[in-house]
Amino acid sequence: MRRSPLLIWRLFFIPLLFWPAFASASAAERDYRALSEEITKKGLTQNYAYNVLGRLTQIGPRLAGSPGAAAAVELMRQEMTDLGLDNVRLEPTIVGRWVRGEIEEARLISSRLGTLPLSICALGGSVATPEGGVRAQVLEVKSFRELRASGDKAKGRIIFFNRPMDPTRVNSFQAYGEAVEQRTLGAAEAAKAGGVAALVRSLNFGESDLPHTGMMGYSPETVRLPAAAISTRGADLLSRSLQSDPELSVYFKTSCANLSPVTSFNVSGEIPGTEAPDEIVLLGAHLDSWDLGQGAHDDGAGCAQVIEALRLLRSAGLRPKRTLRGVLFMDEEFGGTGGRDYARAESRQGERHVAALESDRGGFSPVGLGVGGGETVVSRVKAWQPFLFPLGISWIAPGGGGVDIGPLSTSGTVLMEIVPEAQRYFDAHHSSQDVLAAVHPRELELGAIVMAVLGFLLAEEGV
Amino acid sequence: MRRSPLLIWRLFFIPLLFWPAFASASAAERDYRALSEEITKKGLTQNYAYNVLGRLTQIGPRLAGSPGAAAAVELMRQEMTDLGLDNVRLEPTIVGRWVRGEIEEARLISSRLGTLPLSICALGGSVATPEGGVRAQVLEVKSFRELRASGDKAKGRIIFFNRPMDPTRVNSFQAYGEAVEQRTLGAAEAAKAGGVAALVRSLNFGESDLPHTGMMGYSPETVRLPAAAISTRGADLLSRSLQSDPELSVYFKTSCANLSPVTSFNVSGEIPGTEAPDEIVLLGAHLDSWDLGQGAHDDGAGCAQVIEALRLLRSAGLRPKRTLRGVLFMDEEFGGTGGRDYARAESRQGERHVAALESDRGGFSPVGLGVGGGETVVSRVKAWQPFLFPLGISWIAPGGGGVDIGPLSTSGTVLMEIVPEAQRYFDAHHSSQDVLAAVHPRELELGAIVMAVLGFLLAEEGV
Repeated sequence: MRRSPLLIWRLFFIPLLFWPAFASASAAERDYRALSEEITKKGLTQNYAYNVLGRLTQIGPRLAGSPGAAAAVELMRQEMTDLGLDNVRLEPTIVGRWVRGEIEEARLISSRLGTLPLSICALGGSVATPEGGVRAQVLEVKSFRELRASGDKAKGRIIFFNRPMDPTRVNSFQAYGEAVEQRTLGAAEAAKAGGVAALVRSLNFGESDLPHTGMMGYSPETVRLPAAAISTRGADLLSRSLQSDPELSVYFKTSCANLSPVTSFNVSGEIPGTEAPDEIVLLGAHLDSWDLGQGAHDDGAGCAQVIEALRLLRSAGLRPKRTLRGVLFMDEEFGGTGGRDYARAESRQGERHVAALESDRGGFSPVGLGVGGGETVVSRVKAWQPFLFPLGISWIAPGGGGVDIGPLSTSGTVLMEIVPEAQRYFDAHHSSQDVLAAVHPRELELGAIVMAVLGFLLAEEGV
Repeated sequence: MRRSPLLIWRLFFIPLLFWPAFASASAAERDYRALSEEITKKGLTQNYAYNVLGRLTQIGPRLAGSPGAAAAVELMRQEMTDLGLDNVRLEPTIVGRWVRGEIEEARLISSRLGTLPLSICALGGSVATPEGGVRAQVLEVKSFRELRASGDKAKGRIIFFNRPMDPTRVNSFQAYGEAVEQRTLGAAEAAKAGGVAALVRSLNFGESDLPHTGMMGYSPETVRLPAAAISTRGADLLSRSLQSDPELSVYFKTSCANLSPVTSFNVSGEIPGTEAPDEIVLLGAHLDSWDLGQGAHDDGAGCAQVIEALRLLRSAGLRPKRTLRGVLFMDEEFGGTGGRDYARAESRQGERHVAALESDRGGFSPVGLGVGGGETVVSRVKAWQPFLFPLGISWIAPGGGGVDIGPLSTSGTVLMEIVPEAQRYFDAHHSSQDVLAAVHPRELELGAIVMAVLGFLLAEEGV
C-alpha cells in the first residue's frame, strides 16, 4: 500500500483542457481581456448577485400590483442609489392586479375509483369559479384541433388540456413554447367549444405534485371560464382515471379575482456615457414574479444580475462612451405593461437605445447569446467571443429578444439575450419551487459577469 | 383587462433561437443526423440513465473493496446481461481496502474561546490517530512552500492546510486541480516538517458544514501521520480562532484502517463490431465511489451513461464496424488499479483500442468535449459537431483523458472526455451530498446521448 508521492501526483493530476485558441490579440483586445478577467475575479470572489437575490427573495412573491412588488421596487431603488448609480428613477406603469384568494381545491369524483384529491392552482388572470365551485364531466384533449373536432362532446364539460411539454426537445424553452398555448388560450378555446372550465396540465417536464401557474387571457367573443393548472402527476392520474371511468367528474373551486389596476414602476439606474450619454445600452430583467414561490429564477436572478453587472463596472471605475442603463421592468408576467410603457415614455425622447440585453431564462450558468439585428451585428458580437468564451459563452447565434425589451425593437434597438443551460428551469418555473435555494451563487454570478463584459463592450464599441 | 387572444399570443411568444447553421449535409451526414435525432428522442423520452443510477445508488456507497462495490459489480454485470450486450465480463483487479471505522470527532480547544466542535472526516488511505486521539497546537499554512519555510514552528503541531479552491477560476476543475495537492500530499509534507497530523480544508467552493474526503498518500521516507478533511466552515472558524488565540489546540480522533487488499472487478460488455471486432472504442466510467454519500455524480452518473449509451444503440439495432465496449472500472478513487490492470490484461492482446471516451466530471449537462490525439483528430471530431451541437456540445478542444483510460494512452489510444457544465460539482464531490437527488434526469441523459452518438461515430468512422 505504500505509494510514492510521484505516483500519487500522477493519480490526481487533473488535466486542464485547453479551450479554443482565438486569433492573436490587438492592444484593445488585450485591454478587454484584462477587463473581462478583472470583472470575473471580482465577481466570483464576492458573489454579490446572490446577496442581492437573497434580499429580494426575502420579500416573498412579487406579483404585479401586490405589496411584494411595491416593496421590491423600493428595495431595488434603494440598492441602485446605495451603489452610487446615476439617474436612479422610478417610471410609472399601470398594471393589472390579480389576486389568488384563499381557496384552491379540486377533486376527482368517480363512482368506480372513489374521490381523489387533485393538486391545482388558478391561472393568472382567471376569474374565480362560482361560489359552489365547478363540477362537471371531463373532456381530455391534447390540442385545440382535437377540441374543435370534438363537436358536442365539449358542451358542459371541464376541458382538460393535457399535452405534455415535449420531453424530446433538448431546448426546454422550445418545449415550453410549443405547449404554452394550452395555458394562455385554453380557457378561450374551451369557452368557444361550450365547455364550463379549463384545466391545464402544468408546464414542466418532471413528475411533480406541484401546480405551475402563469398568465392566461380571455377572448372578447366568449364567456370567461375559470381556468386552473393541474400538477403533472395530477394530470397523469386524471388521464388514467378517465380511461377506466370516462363518466367521472372533477370538482374544483377557486377564489381568485381581478381587481382594479394600480400604478407601479420600472426601476432604472445608470452609468452615464462619457461621449454619447443619450445613446443607451440597456441591461434588462423583470422585477415582478408569480405569486407562488419567490420568483428567484424568474426573474429575480435577472434583476440581481443587472444590479451586479452595473456594480462590477462602477466599482472598477469603468465608464464607457455610451450610457449603460439597468432597467428592472414591472409586470412582465401579467401583461408586459412595464416594457411597453418604458419604450413609449416621454423620457425616451432624445434617447437612442443602441442595444438591449435581457436576462430572463433563469439564473443558471450562461452558455450562449442570442443576438438580433442581422448578420453584421452577430459577426461583430462574435468577434468579442474571446472575452466571453472563458465565462462559458460558447455560442453566439441569431435570436434574442424578450417581453420587456421587445417593444424597443420598432425603434431599431438591437435585442440580445443571455441563454443559460436550462434543463432545470421548468422544474421551478412559476411554481412554489422557484426559491433562492434553487439558484447557485456561482452560476448566477457568471450571468452577471457576462452582462457586465458584454454591456461594457456594447456601450464602448456600439453595434 | 380584456385582451384579445392575439395580444396574449404576442406576450407569450417564446422566440426560438436559431443555433449556428452548419455546412449543407452529405447523405452520410444526413444519416448521422437522423441517428442522433432518433437516439435523442428515445433517450429523453425514457430517461433510462436515471433509472440505472437510481438502482446503483440504492446500494449505498461503493468504496473499492467494500461490500457495496461488490454488489455494484454484480448489479452492473446483471444489467449488461439483461440488456443483451455481448461478452459481458468481469476482469479481476486487486484493490486496496480502506475502512473509515466508527469514530470521527474533532474539537477546537481554547482557553479564551472555549471548546468548539469541528466537522471532519478521515482522508482515504489515512492511518488512524492513536486511540487517545491527537491533540496539539496548530500551524495554519496556505502552501507547501509556506510550510517548508516555517522551520521549527511545525514541530509537534497539527498542520492545517487552508488554501481554498480559487473561487475566481470559472473552471471548477482547474480550481480543484490547483488545491488538491494539500489533500494528496499534505500528510507527507506535514511529516517532513515534523508535524503530528494533517488537517486539510475540504475541496469545495461553498460554505459548508460537511467535510469532503478523497485520496491521500504517504511518502516512503516519512512517518505516516493521520490526515483528515475539515469542512470549509470549520476551516474558516479554526482560522479565525487562531487569529485571536494562536495557542489554541485541536483534538481529533479517527479509527480508519488500511486492510489487506482484495480482488474486485472491472465490468465490461459490448456491441461487437461488424467489420473490425478487434478494434475497440471504449466508453468508460468508474464504478467505485467514496464512502460518504452514494457516489451519484462521482461516478455513478458516468456508469449509468455508459450503460444507457450502449442500450440506446443496441435497441436501435445499430452495430458499427468496430466494437463498442463499455467498461465500468473499479478503483479509480483509491489507486486507479482498475484502469491500469485493464490496459495490461492478457485479454487486451490482439485488441487495438482506437479511442476511449470517459465520463467522470459529474452528471450535469454536457457542454464540451476534450479530445486527445493531436490536431488531426480534433479536426475530425469537430467535423461531427453538427450531430453533437444540438445535444449541447458547443465546443470541442484539445484535452481529454482521465484516470481510468489514461493507461491506454501508451498504446496510442485517442483519449476523450465529456465535459459537463460543472459549477455545482464540487458542492457534492466526495461528500455526503453526492446523492441521487443532486442529479437531474435530463442532464444525466444528455451525457448518455452524447456518449452514444460520439461512440457510434468513432466506432463507425474511426479516428
